[in-house]
Amino acid sequence: MGKNEEKSVINIAILGAGTVGGGVYKLLSGQKDEIRQQAGADICVKKVLVRDASKERPGYDRAVLTSDWADIVNDDDIDIVVELMGGIEPAKTYVLEALSKGKQVVTANKDLLAQYGEEIGEAANMNSADVLYEAAVAGVIPIIRPLKQSLAGAEITEIMGIVNGTTNYILTQMSETGMSYEDALARATELGYAEADPTADVEGLDAGRKVAIMASNAFHTKVVFSQVYTEGITKITADDIRYAREFGYVIKLLGVARNTDSGIEVKVHPMLIPQNHSLAGVGGSFNAVFLHGKAMDDVTLVGRGAGEMPTATAVLGDIIDVCRDILFDCCGRVRRNCYKKLRVKDISECESKFFIRMQAKDRPGVLANIAGVLGNNGVGISQVVQRSGNGDTAELVIITDRVAEKNFNDATEILGGMSVVKEISGVIRVYDNV
Amino acid sequence: MGKNEEKSVINIAILGAGTVGGGVYKLLSGQKDEIRQQAGADICVKKVLVRDASKERPGYDRAVLTSDWADIVNDDDIDIVVELMGGIEPAKTYVLEALSKGKQVVTANKDLLAQYGEEIGEAANMNSADVLYEAAVAGVIPIIRPLKQSLAGAEITEIMGIVNGTTNYILTQMSETGMSYEDALARATELGYAEADPTADVEGLDAGRKVAIMASNAFHTKVVFSQVYTEGITKITADDIRYAREFGYVIKLLGVARNTDSGIEVKVHPMLIPQNHSLAGVGGSFNAVFLHGKAMDDVTLVGRGAGEMPTATAVLGDIIDVCRDILFDCCGRVRRNCYKKLRVKDISECESKFFIRMQAKDRPGVLANIAGVLGNNGVGISQVVQRSGNGDTAELVIITDRVAEKNFNDATEILGGMSVVKEISGVIRVYDNV
Repeated sequence: MGKNEEKSVINIAILGAGTVGGGVYKLLSGQKDEIRQQAGADICVKKVLVRDASKERPGYDRAVLTSDWADIVNDDDIDIVVELMGGIEPAKTYVLEALSKGKQVVTANKDLLAQYGEEIGEAANMNSADVLYEAAVAGVIPIIRPLKQSLAGAEITEIMGIVNGTTNYILTQMSETGMSYEDALARATELGYAEADPTADVEGLDAGRKVAIMASNAFHTKVVFSQVYTEGITKITADDIRYAREFGYVIKLLGVARNTDSGIEVKVHPMLIPQNHSLAGVGGSFNAVFLHGKAMDDVTLVGRGAGEMPTATAVLGDIIDVCRDILFDCCGRVRRNCYKKLRVKDISECESKFFIRMQAKDRPGVLANIAGVLGNNGVGISQVVQRSGNGDTAELVIITDRVAEKNFNDATEILGGMSVVKEISGVIRVYDNV
Repeated sequence: MGKNEEKSVINIAILGAGTVGGGVYKLLSGQKDEIRQQAGADICVKKVLVRDASKERPGYDRAVLTSDWADIVNDDDIDIVVELMGGIEPAKTYVLEALSKGKQVVTANKDLLAQYGEEIGEAANMNSADVLYEAAVAGVIPIIRPLKQSLAGAEITEIMGIVNGTTNYILTQMSETGMSYEDALARATELGYAEADPTADVEGLDAGRKVAIMASNAFHTKVVFSQVYTEGITKITADDIRYAREFGYVIKLLGVARNTDSGIEVKVHPMLIPQNHSLAGVGGSFNAVFLHGKAMDDVTLVGRGAGEMPTATAVLGDIIDVCRDILFDCCGRVRRNCYKKLRVKDISECESKFFIRMQAKDRPGVLANIAGVLGNNGVGISQVVQRSGNGDTAELVIITDRVAEKNFNDATEILGGMSVVKEISGVIRVYDNV
């Protein structure tokens, strides 16, 4: 095969024996012949790092378990460290130490990459090492490799991703059954799709980390999680979803990265997208990433964004690829390459169309008043629906034209203070292709 | 960067100055800085092979045009040959000669790969050379690299692709407007989506070549185009589409590759797929590939399958990847790897559900007669619709249970000979997930 022809076994260490770590261990044990053919050598799991090595772990060979990182980092026979612990520390220290010892790294750690991607990328470059992380974004969906390789010349200008399965499950439930956010969240928790503390998912933080990673790779510029604007789905109501449908839209939580002439936009927020958009039909716990580039037009990639085996499959693909690099002595071949210094726009500078739902006094002239305030702030109206409610209240739902967020916020602040406006019940951005 | 650090320019030759060749030339000229950063070196188009080098070609630097292959193959400074001529000869000779001279190859030639993929792969392996061909299947959609790398450990069992834009455009038109096949074909020709002789597209031959290439890569076994069963869309009628919709299906021309315990299935034919299947909404000239593997579940990839710039984008991704291999001295790193010898099943051994539409005499007992013939041949009925037509004719539409093709064919042959059956108007396979 390659140049390291004498190398017939590649030893790896897996950090973590949780869901994904267990899946990778299972896949590696279950299809040894297939993997040898693909990778060009046998892949041997020499160590698995766990917190408590004495704990009974069904399915694991007891001899590989260790709770001591030194057993791994100081073992020169271990070629690849597969980091599946998650979180910043000690994962960051372990990854950097592994690289400095000449080991290759595969990781699925979005928290780490979204915050310290540059540091890790530079350590990899310095050591001519591989750091592969296909599983860190959207599970089994091939997205990092397409960004770095297949679509390397595509000049991507827009990425929109449904990259959090928990929130997509909740919104799909709300949309299909009309249930409230609270009920849908409870159901997601019951089924194990949401964690006991769902904050990172429902507030868009998890999606935000994936946006930072995708934007860095697509636009070749450093983007860290703290630069990503995040807004979650906790305020979305069944009414919002119903009105959105009436206007021909569905509501999704989207991670958005755009490369514009005035800087890049990186944000996570709920969005109304047209029912015929390729992301609209992506339901349940599926993930999807939509890419647009001038030359390539639209590409949409759909698959499982989480789960033991889908994520493990993505990790395994990376491990096999690193094996090829080891055998061909070309580790570091595809490197972090953030050679640009692009400005990240503040959310107030971004532009969008908006859906705004409000309760107003049901009397003549109110719509004219409201439209006037919007107009005075440069907010055009694209569509409007007004419904009489109980007593003297009317529900007013407006979709605006494209407008700078700042103008829109100025307008809604004024609206909120008007005596005829009882409540602004919902504000959601609306897709508008750039 | 890599080991060939002194190498600051990589010279390529493009064979062909047609649509895709022109697109690649344009992309390479238009974003030199971006490409240098991505590829690690400048990419210089040293030669473009054309039939007539004296012809005026706007946009091309006259000095690079040549009609003499010897100018390219004997030029040791040319590192990569980008074959975009199409057809078997002389493309095959040129590709093999380029490999034997130590050059790397990028090609979009599905005809060549579907027939001589093994020969070319072996020549590449022997010369430790790259042969990359992402653009040969489904244009800009990343599919070859996911099969060989990202999903290398995914044990894919099923591939279903809308991999021909012409036929998808025709079927989408028929479905949306109710127009006939002939009218939709005429419209496609008018718009340039169909060629003057549309045979390769409408008879499923183009899709069949792509199926052979995908199956080889996914299942690691030699599959050539002649082994792929092909059936086109020329017999599909507006009535078929209307009834399909009534049953909850849309009709698509699909390239199918399945890995079953009894051998692999490779085929192209129209198919009824459920309206909520991820391929159902892929309209117009878009392509899409649906993949299923036990561990990874479903993955769907959607994008432009043809056109100057989308296809050129895929070719450019390959060129950049080969440059990295040259700079890291690791060409041949991802090789053709058909280490299995899997049997290709004959279509008669495959199983399917069927949609069958027929005109029968409208008199008591006819349905019982027909159902009896189906039952005697082991063909179960899943759904049936009967409509009285003009005079003494009734239209009968049946969706069967899953059955071996042989049994179904035996049954329809008997039905066709029955005096109460006036005509079998349509027979189309129905999706049934395995």
